[in-house]
Amino acid sequence: MNEELHAVYEKLYYFFETRKYADLRILLLDMEPFDIARFIEDNLEEKEELKFFRLLPKELASDVFVEIESDIQENLIKAFTDKELREVVDDMFLDDTVDIIEEMPANVVKRILKNSSPENRKQINSLLEYPDDSAGSIMTTEYVSFSASTTVETAFEKIRKTGLNKETIYTCYVTDRKKHLIGVVTVKDMLLADKNELIAHIMEESVVTASTLEDKEQVALKFSNYDYLALPVVDKEGCLVGIVTVDDAVDVIQEEATEDIQKMAAVLPSEKPYLKQSIFSLWKARLPWLLLLMISATFTSLILSKYESKLQYVVGGAVLYAFVPMLMGTAGNAGNQTSVTIIRAIAVGDVQFRDVLRVILKELFVALLVGLTVAVVCFGKLMLIDRLYNDITLKMAIVVSAVLFASIVMAKLVGCLLPILAKICKLDPAVVASPFMTTIVDVLSLILYCSIAIAVL
Amino acid sequence: MNEELHAVYEKLYYFFETRKYADLRILLLDMEPFDIARFIEDNLEEKEELKFFRLLPKELASDVFVEIESDIQENLIKAFTDKELREVVDDMFLDDTVDIIEEMPANVVKRILKNSSPENRKQINSLLEYPDDSAGSIMTTEYVSFSASTTVETAFEKIRKTGLNKETIYTCYVTDRKKHLIGVVTVKDMLLADKNELIAHIMEESVVTASTLEDKEQVALKFSNYDYLALPVVDKEGCLVGIVTVDDAVDVIQEEATEDIQKMAAVLPSEKPYLKQSIFSLWKARLPWLLLLMISATFTSLILSKYESKLQYVVGGAVLYAFVPMLMGTAGNAGNQTSVTIIRAIAVGDVQFRDVLRVILKELFVALLVGLTVAVVCFGKLMLIDRLYNDITLKMAIVVSAVLFASIVMAKLVGCLLPILAKICKLDPAVVASPFMTTIVDVLSLILYCSIAIAVL
Repeated sequence: MNEELHAVYEKLYYFFETRKYADLRILLLDMEPFDIARFIEDNLEEKEELKFFRLLPKELASDVFVEIESDIQENLIKAFTDKELREVVDDMFLDDTVDIIEEMPANVVKRILKNSSPENRKQINSLLEYPDDSAGSIMTTEYVSFSASTTVETAFEKIRKTGLNKETIYTCYVTDRKKHLIGVVTVKDMLLADKNELIAHIMEESVVTASTLEDKEQVALKFSNYDYLALPVVDKEGCLVGIVTVDDAVDVIQEEATEDIQKMAAVLPSEKPYLKQSIFSLWKARLPWLLLLMISATFTSLILSKYESKLQYVVGGAVLYAFVPMLMGTAGNAGNQTSVTIIRAIAVGDVQFRDVLRVILKELFVALLVGLTVAVVCFGKLMLIDRLYNDITLKMAIVVSAVLFASIVMAKLVGCLLPILAKICKLDPAVVASPFMTTIVDVLSLILYCSIAIAVL
Repeated sequence: MNEELHAVYEKLYYFFETRKYADLRILLLDMEPFDIARFIEDNLEEKEELKFFRLLPKELASDVFVEIESDIQENLIKAFTDKELREVVDDMFLDDTVDIIEEMPANVVKRILKNSSPENRKQINSLLEYPDDSAGSIMTTEYVSFSASTTVETAFEKIRKTGLNKETIYTCYVTDRKKHLIGVVTVKDMLLADKNELIAHIMEESVVTASTLEDKEQVALKFSNYDYLALPVVDKEGCLVGIVTVDDAVDVIQEEATEDIQKMAAVLPSEKPYLKQSIFSLWKARLPWLLLLMISATFTSLILSKYESKLQYVVGGAVLYAFVPMLMGTAGNAGNQTSVTIIRAIAVGDVQFRDVLRVILKELFVALLVGLTVAVVCFGKLMLIDRLYNDITLKMAIVVSAVLFASIVMAKLVGCLLPILAKICKLDPAVVASPFMTTIVDVLSLILYCSIAIAVL
């Protein structure tokens, strides 16, 4: 948070505490709903929240409400009178209402629906039916649409009349009588056209659409590729059922990146910001993978124990143990570099199914090149540095470097194949590939090391 | 890529090869510039590119050009006549021109500037002076502005006259005579207002702005927090110098997430999509950290060698070796969970300077909880499973579990402190914390293990 905002928060708190409500309102009118929501979350006691919320200027109330975290939303709703709840819900866009409802317990949901208009209730219920990660779940039904035979002037009149309650007015949709989407027209096109021109003549007929069940991540990618402000969502019959606006796409992009990063780090993803997560929920998110990885390390212990007796009879067998962490660590890092790169490339659409062979070949060459370089440097290090504190023969140095080379190549291939296989099996590459990869690479490089060492030395 | 687009690409290629240029143009008019650019990159030979580009409908040419990757852009510019270059450059938005120029060699830059209008040349030169990661570097100077005394009607006239060449018309800016930014007004507000209303009466005076030198990542965060379509950029005197539009913010958000993911995986970040990166550049991006991590693993070898002689005299000393990979692996994973979580929380603005103490305390509690759980499970596993293939005494199991507990707590604290320290030292948390963390955690957990084992057993 910047200094400036911090000063505003202090003023706000001062006005609130000293009951200078007129000053408070003037200050609030100059603030962004997002910042007011953060103020409520971070600076107020639970019992102050409702009191503060009631002081918000009417036109800000629902905008602020939408930005508040769900626990406080729930408390507020429970404390609202029916009239207050109705006012807040009425002013919200339907996609925001749906987002809030999805976080609430059943009795609160009932109250929200009871205090919505019949028309809105119907739309909310239909939006609630879309699966969690679908385009349908992030769309709103509040868009502007015309028929193709409307003139620009009439279209502007319609916008003036209904625009206030639409999530965006800048992209308008042209539909036929059966609500089939037949074109889009922007306010820019309309402003630049003659007022008697027909919408049919200035609309763009080739429209990129999303389907209701499309993955919301794919929808967000369309925004980043095509630079849209809004994208129409159509059902199987090509009828317009809603729109997704760019602000929701931005949220999806941020959330999905965070989720992928969490999954790659073996953490169960959470949509809540870090500071809002309880210690218990952080524990729950981190424990499963950590336990699984710890238990799967049984394999490495098994292998080491198995080879131990044999390694004892090998020249310098004990010395070789000292390089196990280096070998496993480097192989793990090498594999991780590849898997993370591929996972991200798949996520942002840079790599597609048809590229699989290209990717594998590319990674093979990179692996050979990287493996060779690292192995050569390692050989030099073994002969020049490690010999200072350990009895390392030329033969041992060769074995260690050769195994390092082989481990890196193996690790990079595993790191490249796992996410691709996951994608083919319709599993989440980020989950399957990254944490599992380490275990697989650890085991393989250990077996490689022990067996080669025993065979050669 | 979806099936549909694939079919379009095949048609496109067929029309191009069989010289059905009229059909080709009709098809192109229905396509998105982004998709046409991908077609040129993936399906055409180098010598076909110019020929194909010349077939593009005039109104699409510069939109497509902007989306093409820079190597092909360079080839095209070199092959363009002066007239062609002028037409393409004239139709581009200035921020896109600047992006392209930044990737080009000096002689190509000269040609581009020579073929720009004097006014544009001046603006391009001033945009080029902003540092690479600043708001200035992603802004454009093509915005709509009025004085406060303009009426809505006159404002619309101005938009009609100049709007075609503006990057956005939906958010307009109100400035005084000295170009100080005094308000914003949206086309929506203007449409809903009376045509004789003064802009002064409907404009929003409290404006969130970015400063020219502000980090572009911070600017992108403002978009995701405040749901803007455009953000004004002001200089130190508060004069409006440009705007950043939401499509550029989306690109920044995607790029920064990819960069952070690459850095966390010990890869030098690259802006190029995976398939466009050469094998050599992938090698260059992955080698430095891999080498550094390999060499820094010398410490673990050193420690293991040092304790080896002592461990030999300990009961079951050889058996203890078998658990080194499990201990180091689990500690590494535990630390990674924390560091990645904190790095991302800092990046998306969820964690700020003033939260440092809260974060450390929280991580300490989570670490104790997670460490305890994992250690207990590990103890059970040692006594029930590992005893089947190894001679494990109760004392040994206690030592291994206790060290595991201590390692996890230590790893999580390191994983939490490193990114915070990096941020305080104005270093990049993603670079400093993640790859370094593993080495630090490895070394510390090994020392812990060896010294405790020798002391107790």
